[in-house]
Amino acid sequence: MKAAVFHTPGSPLTIEEVGISKPGPREVLVRTVAVGVCHSDLHFVDGHYPHPAPVVLGHEASGIVEQVGSLVRTVKPGDHVVTCLSAYCGHCEHCVTGHLSLCVSPDTKRGKDEEPRLTYVQKPMPQFINLSAYAEQMLVHENALVAIRRDMPLDRAALLGCAVTTGTGAVFNTAKVRPGETVAVIGCGGIGLATINGAALAGAGRIIAIDMQDSKLELARQFGATDVINPKNGDPVQQVQELLRGGVHHAFECIGLKQTAEQAFNMLARGGCATVIGMIKPGLKLEIDPLMLLHERRIQGSFMGSNRFPVDLPRLTDFYMQGRLKLDEMISQRIRLDQINSAFDELRRGELARSVIVFDQ
Amino acid sequence: MKAAVFHTPGSPLTIEEVGISKPGPREVLVRTVAVGVCHSDLHFVDGHYPHPAPVVLGHEASGIVEQVGSLVRTVKPGDHVVTCLSAYCGHCEHCVTGHLSLCVSPDTKRGKDEEPRLTYVQKPMPQFINLSAYAEQMLVHENALVAIRRDMPLDRAALLGCAVTTGTGAVFNTAKVRPGETVAVIGCGGIGLATINGAALAGAGRIIAIDMQDSKLELARQFGATDVINPKNGDPVQQVQELLRGGVHHAFECIGLKQTAEQAFNMLARGGCATVIGMIKPGLKLEIDPLMLLHERRIQGSFMGSNRFPVDLPRLTDFYMQGRLKLDEMISQRIRLDQINSAFDELRRGELARSVIVFDQ
Repeated sequence: MKAAVFHTPGSPLTIEEVGISKPGPREVLVRTVAVGVCHSDLHFVDGHYPHPAPVVLGHEASGIVEQVGSLVRTVKPGDHVVTCLSAYCGHCEHCVTGHLSLCVSPDTKRGKDEEPRLTYVQKPMPQFINLSAYAEQMLVHENALVAIRRDMPLDRAALLGCAVTTGTGAVFNTAKVRPGETVAVIGCGGIGLATINGAALAGAGRIIAIDMQDSKLELARQFGATDVINPKNGDPVQQVQELLRGGVHHAFECIGLKQTAEQAFNMLARGGCATVIGMIKPGLKLEIDPLMLLHERRIQGSFMGSNRFPVDLPRLTDFYMQGRLKLDEMISQRIRLDQINSAFDELRRGELARSVIVFDQ
Repeated sequence: MKAAVFHTPGSPLTIEEVGISKPGPREVLVRTVAVGVCHSDLHFVDGHYPHPAPVVLGHEASGIVEQVGSLVRTVKPGDHVVTCLSAYCGHCEHCVTGHLSLCVSPDTKRGKDEEPRLTYVQKPMPQFINLSAYAEQMLVHENALVAIRRDMPLDRAALLGCAVTTGTGAVFNTAKVRPGETVAVIGCGGIGLATINGAALAGAGRIIAIDMQDSKLELARQFGATDVINPKNGDPVQQVQELLRGGVHHAFECIGLKQTAEQAFNMLARGGCATVIGMIKPGLKLEIDPLMLLHERRIQGSFMGSNRFPVDLPRLTDFYMQGRLKLDEMISQRIRLDQINSAFDELRRGELARSVIVFDQ
């Protein structure tokens, strides 16, 4: 099959022939239909986070099941599926207490003595977070995908695999925003917009979108923001205080910067909670004022939206079909796999919400 | 009445004649029976936190109601009461959502045009957190005290007013420790011991006490610690990891130091939660690794144990009477009001768990 291979930070991905194995007993072979170009992939491409290479990145995908292993019970060939950021084992402490995204069990991966799932120039190639979705096919554990209803368009469904689950999950599962509570969202890219949409779905009272680009703030309003703040007009913490004396109940950091994560904490009301979604460069430390903490402010990370994919994905799909979850507006362009490098360039410029690679069917 | 007056950081408190007003409509005049000498008072005495002076400190007290205002319904003369760290108004957003300790309403204080509650050398003297308990009498709002059962000894009841509510409340109300979860407690003074006792009451699976003094660790075992760690024997974060691979579900900082607050966060398992109870010197910043945060670790402050005093105090009293809450072991000495400065000296040396001032009845 054809796949976009990442070789080393700073050099473009190349389209290559990559070998893919047959499904093991609990594995599923999926024909990729669509895959989003996500900022987390860019972090690896740009070398902010290290990853063994060569590797096929990509993790926000939808597809159609081609073949299933002998023990697979959750999907069958022909099913429409969305891939999951985390393959959950289903029996570790994290899984059985509902924190599937924290599962680190090796049970859903292939062992070292088994045939590798992927090969490149005759050598085994490790998968990227059990998926490697920038490819015509994906071979994954059955607990790394969820079947969705047939009437859901697959190009938009791909976004549910990462950005939308991460953003809405941070609101629903991590922060557990309650109706009427006030929310600030820093950064209005794909995850920020999904966070805003999640806050609107959860019934947040005021939703303040914060971004340096007015065009993104305009988009944020379409996703449910009731107020917008551009930090070019002054310190966003102070601007939030002017809008809501005392601060907000919840702040979400959706960029991955030390400064904005600290701002998220500093704009909280007494008893408020900051949720950091963005991936911050390793080595940096967030500096937190203990006096702010003392009045019961909290700061927490949200890992893949604290997802419980088998429960969350069907709900998100229904929300879209009901017109309550915006996905169409989130896709700024549909491209071919061989245009992936230009999509990363767009991401680096930070203007587009999201490119989606669509494969010929 | 006689009271211990704080004048300026670094100089000893002096026992002086202080004037006290009559109760307003919702106020209660209480004859002080016992008052604990708490580390938070010492922070003000030593100037770590600023406070207008002269002032009567003290906030961990019990007493007997002498006189009540015309509208007071919750207590009557002769009732045994414990004072509360926070006077709650009962109608602000924090109060009506169960977060009484975050109430900042001025409704429970006297206005500027009213006669002051306390006077010293003919001048109005502000109360210390609505209490000023290092005195023979206290004049407080009815929402700043709770009546307790008559068979509860008042010297031990005083401890419920701060240390015990702060420690157990951080476990019950702020962190909401669940049965079987693992807990580390850094610092085994009054609050640390109460936190350990709270963790034991909540059914924590493993309770790791951490302190530099072996004598305090011995005391910690009596309060319910299942394991003890002395940082003199090596990095406590590493020692915790050796005891519990992956880290603990909950860590509580009960000293008030930047270093130990950061350690509390760093000893957490994925998905774990650090609760900072200690008061950290203003100006310092806690440095938090965002990668640790990413895996859903949290850090939060607990303000006065997130108390709901009217609910929590009767429960704590019952726990003591049932033998499930240790208070006798927490009192290291009973002293007179005029011995208060030597009690602060003991606190500075960090050896004694807690001195309690007992007034002649």
